[in-house]
Amino acid sequence: MHRSHNCGELNIKNINQEVVLSGWVQNIRDLGGMIFIDLRDRYGITQLTVDINQNENLFQKAKNIGREFVLKINGIVQERTNKNKKINTGEIEIIVNKINILSESETPPFTIEENTDGGEEMRLKHRYLDLRRKTMSENIILRHKIAQETRNFLIRNNFLEIETPFLIKSTPEGARDFVVPSRLNKGFFYALPQSPQTFKQLLMVAGFDRYFQLVKCFRDEDFRADRQPEFTQIDCEMSFVEEEDIYSVFSQYVKNIIKEIGGEEIKEIPKMTFAESIDLYGSDKPDLRFDLKIKNIDSICKNKGFNVFDKSENISALCLKGNSGISRKILDSLTEFVKSPQIGGSGLIYIKCNLDGSLKSSIDKFFNESDLKNIQNMCDAKKDDIIFIICGGYKKTKQIIGDLRIELIKRFQIEPKNKFAPVWITDFPLFDFDKEKQQLHAMHHPFTAPKNEDVEKLNTAPEEAIAQAYDIVLNGQEIGGGSIRIFDRKTQNKIFELLGLSENEIKSKFGFLLEAFKYGAPPHGGIAFGFDRICAIMSNEKSIRDVIAFPKNNSGKDLMIDSPSLIDDDQLKDLNIKLSE
Amino acid sequence: MHRSHNCGELNIKNINQEVVLSGWVQNIRDLGGMIFIDLRDRYGITQLTVDINQNENLFQKAKNIGREFVLKINGIVQERTNKNKKINTGEIEIIVNKINILSESETPPFTIEENTDGGEEMRLKHRYLDLRRKTMSENIILRHKIAQETRNFLIRNNFLEIETPFLIKSTPEGARDFVVPSRLNKGFFYALPQSPQTFKQLLMVAGFDRYFQLVKCFRDEDFRADRQPEFTQIDCEMSFVEEEDIYSVFSQYVKNIIKEIGGEEIKEIPKMTFAESIDLYGSDKPDLRFDLKIKNIDSICKNKGFNVFDKSENISALCLKGNSGISRKILDSLTEFVKSPQIGGSGLIYIKCNLDGSLKSSIDKFFNESDLKNIQNMCDAKKDDIIFIICGGYKKTKQIIGDLRIELIKRFQIEPKNKFAPVWITDFPLFDFDKEKQQLHAMHHPFTAPKNEDVEKLNTAPEEAIAQAYDIVLNGQEIGGGSIRIFDRKTQNKIFELLGLSENEIKSKFGFLLEAFKYGAPPHGGIAFGFDRICAIMSNEKSIRDVIAFPKNNSGKDLMIDSPSLIDDDQLKDLNIKLSE
Repeated sequence: MHRSHNCGELNIKNINQEVVLSGWVQNIRDLGGMIFIDLRDRYGITQLTVDINQNENLFQKAKNIGREFVLKINGIVQERTNKNKKINTGEIEIIVNKINILSESETPPFTIEENTDGGEEMRLKHRYLDLRRKTMSENIILRHKIAQETRNFLIRNNFLEIETPFLIKSTPEGARDFVVPSRLNKGFFYALPQSPQTFKQLLMVAGFDRYFQLVKCFRDEDFRADRQPEFTQIDCEMSFVEEEDIYSVFSQYVKNIIKEIGGEEIKEIPKMTFAESIDLYGSDKPDLRFDLKIKNIDSICKNKGFNVFDKSENISALCLKGNSGISRKILDSLTEFVKSPQIGGSGLIYIKCNLDGSLKSSIDKFFNESDLKNIQNMCDAKKDDIIFIICGGYKKTKQIIGDLRIELIKRFQIEPKNKFAPVWITDFPLFDFDKEKQQLHAMHHPFTAPKNEDVEKLNTAPEEAIAQAYDIVLNGQEIGGGSIRIFDRKTQNKIFELLGLSENEIKSKFGFLLEAFKYGAPPHGGIAFGFDRICAIMSNEKSIRDVIAFPKNNSGKDLMIDSPSLIDDDQLKDLNIKLSE
Repeated sequence: MHRSHNCGELNIKNINQEVVLSGWVQNIRDLGGMIFIDLRDRYGITQLTVDINQNENLFQKAKNIGREFVLKINGIVQERTNKNKKINTGEIEIIVNKINILSESETPPFTIEENTDGGEEMRLKHRYLDLRRKTMSENIILRHKIAQETRNFLIRNNFLEIETPFLIKSTPEGARDFVVPSRLNKGFFYALPQSPQTFKQLLMVAGFDRYFQLVKCFRDEDFRADRQPEFTQIDCEMSFVEEEDIYSVFSQYVKNIIKEIGGEEIKEIPKMTFAESIDLYGSDKPDLRFDLKIKNIDSICKNKGFNVFDKSENISALCLKGNSGISRKILDSLTEFVKSPQIGGSGLIYIKCNLDGSLKSSIDKFFNESDLKNIQNMCDAKKDDIIFIICGGYKKTKQIIGDLRIELIKRFQIEPKNKFAPVWITDFPLFDFDKEKQQLHAMHHPFTAPKNEDVEKLNTAPEEAIAQAYDIVLNGQEIGGGSIRIFDRKTQNKIFELLGLSENEIKSKFGFLLEAFKYGAPPHGGIAFGFDRICAIMSNEKSIRDVIAFPKNNSGKDLMIDSPSLIDDDQLKDLNIKLSE
């Protein structure tokens, strides 16, 4: 072993001990007759001192050491005169009597410090150096802890960890599959799983009852910000359960993670229907750390002669506290935000509730003082608040005002009420109707069961059917989602038909699942959490890239190993494929 | 929730309780006025009774229930008159007062019993039914336990679980890679990892110190018995270690698994060099549950006028206890075994040490009584033992007699001395020399460090260099292997050159690793265990297929989901590839 202790554990109790440490040079300071070296490893930093008066040869050797060299040193622990109370090892230093340079280092292409000077591309290319930075290594260690907390929780609750295959079958639904040509079965392909969905259902048919897996999944998507072609899922499934059982077990799970990792106690995780969430927050991923609810003010705004309101399906308002004084310029820029292509609004109406009690709005022409007062009351607006109003079709209006809500929270740096605000979103529609193609799509996935009372609607008005599907949202980000599954052939077949699959397609893609349902399938349901996303939220990172050891960039490239790459013609020939011209 | 209890937990303490159970019908017996149903779930089996006198409607309903139906029943726990002491629930039964048929079942294609009538193909096709069988579900549950024991041990020892990527770069070395065409980078390919080797080394360069992962790996091999194209590895790496540190940590690990899962205490895991193992057992995977050591008897056999011996590089003998009386027929079939193409021997010599003290051999013509006595003594053979002799070139002789050793153990059902016999095999050669191609190959992999004292040999006689490489063998099967790694550019480059890689190949395949070694790489080493293999040994299964939930068959096909399969022309087009004619 190249060390007796690590660089994070020596303290005042070790005074006068002979120790061997190994690690990286974080910093080296030559004060003339004295050299100080900060030696770093995963556990901490320990200060080394080399004194010219004690050992001149050693001193000369130390002079040639640079940052990021790997050293093995022998020395004696000594109390420091200049104590650093901020770190564990801050009361001691090591008087070095032997230095073994295990590895030299060239000057790294960026500084290995909290605030590095390296751009993201450079840091991704030398990821092993970026991971030496404290925040990055702490993120990876936190990820390890969250994984263990997750496993421990699930195992305590009788879940079995069972591995499902990676080389499966392509069943393109929604996102594209990555495929793998088979050499031994020429012309045939495996596919990498987008999720172990059908396998976990078959595990329920097999009788395993409670299954989980922390598992890599793959989606060949057109890359968007903060998506990775491979990502990690906490995949869970249970038999003999109904929606309430899922809420009960996994509320405990989320509370447990927030407590053990985030240090906060959550009493209960609230539930909100999809419809309610859209209505109140303009999103199915409401960030409940902030109050800021949307009010429907249709009832008091219509038939006042303002044509824009009168022809609107919905009129929604948001009350921003304590900002009645905002400038024309800010109002204009908020209007511009609403009208930007990615938001797609046509304008923004405001009512300022001035400090003197007067009201000033952009619709003064159409509404008198008393009308505006009514709106003010309906919005619970007080003096110094400002009310924003969006109107139009229901869905669009809610989306716009939901986006505006998030923008206001950011721009006005509204203080969150609490650090973590999880919420279950329930009662999702079963289908999404694509008007252009006149085709239903599964909102969640085609294995989701409709509400028992809505089964009949599959025959009459499928687009109105509500699903036994749910998401769990934390701080405005979806961290998990799932459903109670269909477990009978008849309903499953019906859903496949409604989704426009031909009998042949059903058979070739999902025949095995329908076959399995012949032999006694239990009622079952489950959930999958986005592990990367949970880690990012708990690490306070915006991007999941910062909680993945070796991520790809936004074009799906691994800049470090330079992948994807060309392969040999021999390999292509073996696989019986050619590149198209 | 569809149950108040599971089918394995009710006992005499629950008498008179009202319970709800859900599960599968294992068995149903109609005794005229009484129907008995064995209801099964993952936890056990509970007996249900339906009495025609208590509820005739219910009785009629029960009559229509078949095997593998999924039921939810309400009932009262009652003491049994006919107790079954073999199972937990054997003292009670449930007097059913309500039956809800959750799912019906067609007659399964094979019986869901310990000894099933289903052939392997049928069972793989309906894997979810095969997994309902007790041995199979117990295997999967044991695998779960071994995974948890493994993680708990490693985490106690400060290892961090860190995920490495699955979409990496093709660097064909040894086995073939599975590749994944990239849609967004046309003409480029990812590869699936054969192991996370370079990534775990980069994690050491990053400073993570102790890493592990239970991870799927992929090898596109020509299928052989009991190989899977995807398999699970317990992958570990440590920094600042030497060989002895690896032995110390991972001996603890293996002992821990054998104790916690196998219930046996192992005091110490012995070490044996590769050369010694070949010499004594004719294999680098010696099964030490059996004594049966090979003796070199060259010294007393040569120059006796027997040309076959005289021209042999090696003469090896095995002494089989208590079988001097075996028939001519058995001797002939052993000779045939030795001469079979897969063994490749040219003949088998024997010396019978008869019960009356006389010796009878197939070389009586060349050896007198006293010569044979000498051989007997050298082999520690007693009355009633039989000695088998193989001779020829050293390597081939050892392989043949090693194979014969295993065959004798099987055929004569030799009792093992102990249930588990782990052993470290050390000091592997660094290279294997391919005489045909006049090319060195890495015996382990190209990142393996030579022994410190053999570094010079890389320049003079690389084929003689010994590696800091080791395997761990359990009951004659390799369950893990690893090495201390090279951590400097110069040596790593030298090895790549010796392996015949051009400068360009080195750069394009391993440039990132050599680049990383510029910036302070720590000394490091590691090991990877075959998780499937460990599970198979601990479950007493011959095939790893029996410890994998959804395995592929020996042609790499998943018979259940029918994969690999054809993919759409659109998908091929998107990926910019075509099938060759």
